[in-house]
Amino acid sequence: MGKDIKILVIGGSACGPKTAARARRRTPDAKITILEQGQYVSIATCGMPYYISGVIESEKSLIIKRPDYFKDVMDIDVLLGMRVLSINRKAHNVQALNIKTNEQQDFEYDKLVIATGGSPKIPPFPGKELKNILTLSKFEDAVALRNAVTSGKLKHAVIIGAGLIGMEMAEAFTRSGLETTVVESLNWPLPTLFDKDIGLHLAKYLREKGVKLLFGERVTGFEGDNEGNIKRVLMQNNSIDADIVLMAIGTTPNVKLAKDAGLAIGALGGITVNQYLETSDPDIYAGGDCVENTNLVTGNKMLAPMGSTANKHGRVIGTNLAGGRDTFPGVMGTSVVKIFDYNVGRTGLNEAQYTTGFAPVTAFIPVADRANYFPGSKEILVKVIADRTTGRLLGGQIIGEGEVAKRIDVLVTAITLGATVDTLANLDLAYAPPYNGAMDPLHNAANVIRNKMSGLAQTVTTEKVKNMIDSGEEFILLDVRNPDEFEKARIECNQSVLIPLPDLRQNLEKLPKEARIVVLCRSSIRAFQALCTLRGAGYRNVAFMEGSILGWPYEVCTMPVEKK
Amino acid sequence: MGKDIKILVIGGSACGPKTAARARRRTPDAKITILEQGQYVSIATCGMPYYISGVIESEKSLIIKRPDYFKDVMDIDVLLGMRVLSINRKAHNVQALNIKTNEQQDFEYDKLVIATGGSPKIPPFPGKELKNILTLSKFEDAVALRNAVTSGKLKHAVIIGAGLIGMEMAEAFTRSGLETTVVESLNWPLPTLFDKDIGLHLAKYLREKGVKLLFGERVTGFEGDNEGNIKRVLMQNNSIDADIVLMAIGTTPNVKLAKDAGLAIGALGGITVNQYLETSDPDIYAGGDCVENTNLVTGNKMLAPMGSTANKHGRVIGTNLAGGRDTFPGVMGTSVVKIFDYNVGRTGLNEAQYTTGFAPVTAFIPVADRANYFPGSKEILVKVIADRTTGRLLGGQIIGEGEVAKRIDVLVTAITLGATVDTLANLDLAYAPPYNGAMDPLHNAANVIRNKMSGLAQTVTTEKVKNMIDSGEEFILLDVRNPDEFEKARIECNQSVLIPLPDLRQNLEKLPKEARIVVLCRSSIRAFQALCTLRGAGYRNVAFMEGSILGWPYEVCTMPVEKK
Repeated sequence: MGKDIKILVIGGSACGPKTAARARRRTPDAKITILEQGQYVSIATCGMPYYISGVIESEKSLIIKRPDYFKDVMDIDVLLGMRVLSINRKAHNVQALNIKTNEQQDFEYDKLVIATGGSPKIPPFPGKELKNILTLSKFEDAVALRNAVTSGKLKHAVIIGAGLIGMEMAEAFTRSGLETTVVESLNWPLPTLFDKDIGLHLAKYLREKGVKLLFGERVTGFEGDNEGNIKRVLMQNNSIDADIVLMAIGTTPNVKLAKDAGLAIGALGGITVNQYLETSDPDIYAGGDCVENTNLVTGNKMLAPMGSTANKHGRVIGTNLAGGRDTFPGVMGTSVVKIFDYNVGRTGLNEAQYTTGFAPVTAFIPVADRANYFPGSKEILVKVIADRTTGRLLGGQIIGEGEVAKRIDVLVTAITLGATVDTLANLDLAYAPPYNGAMDPLHNAANVIRNKMSGLAQTVTTEKVKNMIDSGEEFILLDVRNPDEFEKARIECNQSVLIPLPDLRQNLEKLPKEARIVVLCRSSIRAFQALCTLRGAGYRNVAFMEGSILGWPYEVCTMPVEKK
Repeated sequence: MGKDIKILVIGGSACGPKTAARARRRTPDAKITILEQGQYVSIATCGMPYYISGVIESEKSLIIKRPDYFKDVMDIDVLLGMRVLSINRKAHNVQALNIKTNEQQDFEYDKLVIATGGSPKIPPFPGKELKNILTLSKFEDAVALRNAVTSGKLKHAVIIGAGLIGMEMAEAFTRSGLETTVVESLNWPLPTLFDKDIGLHLAKYLREKGVKLLFGERVTGFEGDNEGNIKRVLMQNNSIDADIVLMAIGTTPNVKLAKDAGLAIGALGGITVNQYLETSDPDIYAGGDCVENTNLVTGNKMLAPMGSTANKHGRVIGTNLAGGRDTFPGVMGTSVVKIFDYNVGRTGLNEAQYTTGFAPVTAFIPVADRANYFPGSKEILVKVIADRTTGRLLGGQIIGEGEVAKRIDVLVTAITLGATVDTLANLDLAYAPPYNGAMDPLHNAANVIRNKMSGLAQTVTTEKVKNMIDSGEEFILLDVRNPDEFEKARIECNQSVLIPLPDLRQNLEKLPKEARIVVLCRSSIRAFQALCTLRGAGYRNVAFMEGSILGWPYEVCTMPVEKK
């Protein structure tokens, strides 16, 4: 193939433009064309929720590059409003419709790139055509949503789906003064990304911020007024007012073109690509939200519709279009999202959902994000998951007002490279009081897992303790905090006993040797110490509640302790 | 050895208490004693500069645990004011002096732990005994420094040594209203931790913050007044006023006890330990600032006096004292420090100093720490170093007001696990606009190195360009920014030519094909694009200046461009 090959790219969002720019840098003489059906190219899609909320003031901030720039700087033709109708692999051309002129046009290619992205799922609910039932996917969607929320006419916003977009938009709507309700068929926010123990804390936080949450509710349809405006969202057991509805139950890869052209489609509905991001036709590459990725922990395929992944794909494809042989290894299922002042991040496998083939062991610790004596130190809740047999790290989930993204990225790196908890525990992470304690939260989490693996730490989960209390089980819930801490917030139950840690050694006679004892404190540091003390003194049926009071997502009692 | 073994720990700062606490959790019956010569145990030494500056208000915040706590909670005896004089390995005991009573006392041990830390270096300068010539190592030093700076009587502070303590204290003194000068015999701040290209930027920033810097200056002595107060610091070619002097030229491991006892001492002056942190006597462990560590990149020994390392040592020793066999693999030479609003971090090898045995290839990029359209986005300067032959990551240096510690920690993890730039480039790092761009700065840095390794990117350093300009070399310094950017700040020289990137393809006739061309822009993104365009058009003698204007540590011209 000559130097002046024809490269044709379908899709002008993230992967497409990145592909074209990368290819240009390596092939000065190729003819490169991007066909985009919308009116914009190279849009910062991930910034749209912040534009809707007004955090980003101008929509111009979201337009990264204009077609002129591609032409002038890189000699890349960007054709907007050009909807591709079909791919003729034999003839090596595509048929496209110019939306403005309604004329059809053919485009030849030597190499074709499919970067058609994904589309929001819209189930066939009755009433789904009512006005102000919107999705957020394209630039035009963002403008429509911003116009709606700034109109001053709306009061009730309903978000269907508590995924990443749903969460970002819950903040955006709330900040815009709308009463916001999230309806989710599963039982906590970001239910596919986070385990219940973390998810319940996120739910608590969202409620504190004024977001209403309806879990375990399935939408059945919509009711409108005489003018065709949405008025109510109907559910199986409920219905609520709505002046605007955002459908945010996920996206589907746009694979129709690829499928019609006979390219291989995977079981998850994305285009099948190999490590070079070639489709089943070696002259056609695909990348971005429309393809399936390899999960680097399990080796299984997964969908990973992320702007970061799309950009990486684009670079790999651009290199390979120009005769290179670059590879994209896969993804880790990482995500991070800011929800009000919470940083919410995860990577790898969940404990509950994805650890088939592994025997998971976890750490669940509330911990200060920097030295706890340093002003501005904030709590985070860290969950790390490893394989009990090998100690291999499998995943992590972290939320809170403190620094989260850093720890997620360290876990991403460690898991990608096959590290164990032993390696994590001794990583020479950067330390100074404005950034962490002398032991970073990740060191602490790794050591909790090591203590559990070696049998030194016995733990029970907050959920298990809640069930033990609710079912009236016979045990001692030993709180080893100071009386003033206990007074302020405690788990009120018949099983509760307060013995501050410094008094414990002198008060062992209060605790029967054969009793089932669950210890807790504020964060579990003292509880672990108490556990060691009790086991040293011969108690055998003792464990501490992981996460203690800070990790307890249920009600606590904040009334003064009754004097007896 | 029985369950009730005697464990004796010398030193009560970081490693000692951590060792004792860990040992107790695993050996309920051991008799554990800590001997500390000072009046405090378990002090947050790393927080002291912030206490001196008033960022941390109360000295109580620095006292992590009191002796009572060790006794009541962990049944550990902490004896303060107890200076160990010698170790009798044959008799398995140590001889100590009770500083208050001046009585000597022997302490038996089955297992001994040496955690004696380090001491500030104080060269034999004439006048070093003058009042207000201080060091910062112990809690009492911090109290003395705080009392001095809050006395209102001091005006001129001089810090000798631009290392980590020197930098933290430069901020602390300046914040306290003192005119602060740092004297350093080498040529930029943190000279052993950072290369010159980063170091010059840090120097510029410190000067902007009002800190005076005297580089290449060696102190020769001190002059005082009649009352014995420090008044002037004398140097080879200079002398300056001083009301208070902080000596911060590093620390020496405290190894006298170990050496006198015949334990092996390494070439760098620290106690020699194996991976179990055993000294040359299997009944004696050592950890913290007094031992030598293994550098995980080079395999060579290094000193790593860090609170984080000391704590990790403590956990390993505590485990092994209790019959375990835990190992400490080594360190990466990581450090991070907050200097005013700059975050300043590094890990692994420097380009200039430590890469013997490697052919280093580097990336040097100014980059926004989050999506550049996201409010609050801040610049950081990222340097990543890899081995040109293998692509293996070797080190990183990052400074700026944006997020730094996260990227350093990812590099620490990647380097520890032997990752290459290819792996770094495709890590599934957490992405959302409040945290980074779709390509994280580390992805960009990895890709710059890959572009250099593959021959796609030719670069020259800012220092080289500065020399080319100063020596009047014949070349074109092609600035491809917009005219308004050029107007605001530019490198003024005869070689400078402005052709904005969008106009470049149309103006190639202005650039002779055989000319030596160095391209620059704001951050180097457009310069790299221009390089590709020029090479595509047949230019062969072209490179871009890495870092461009944001990476240029020398003077820029901000005067209006003269109309010709």
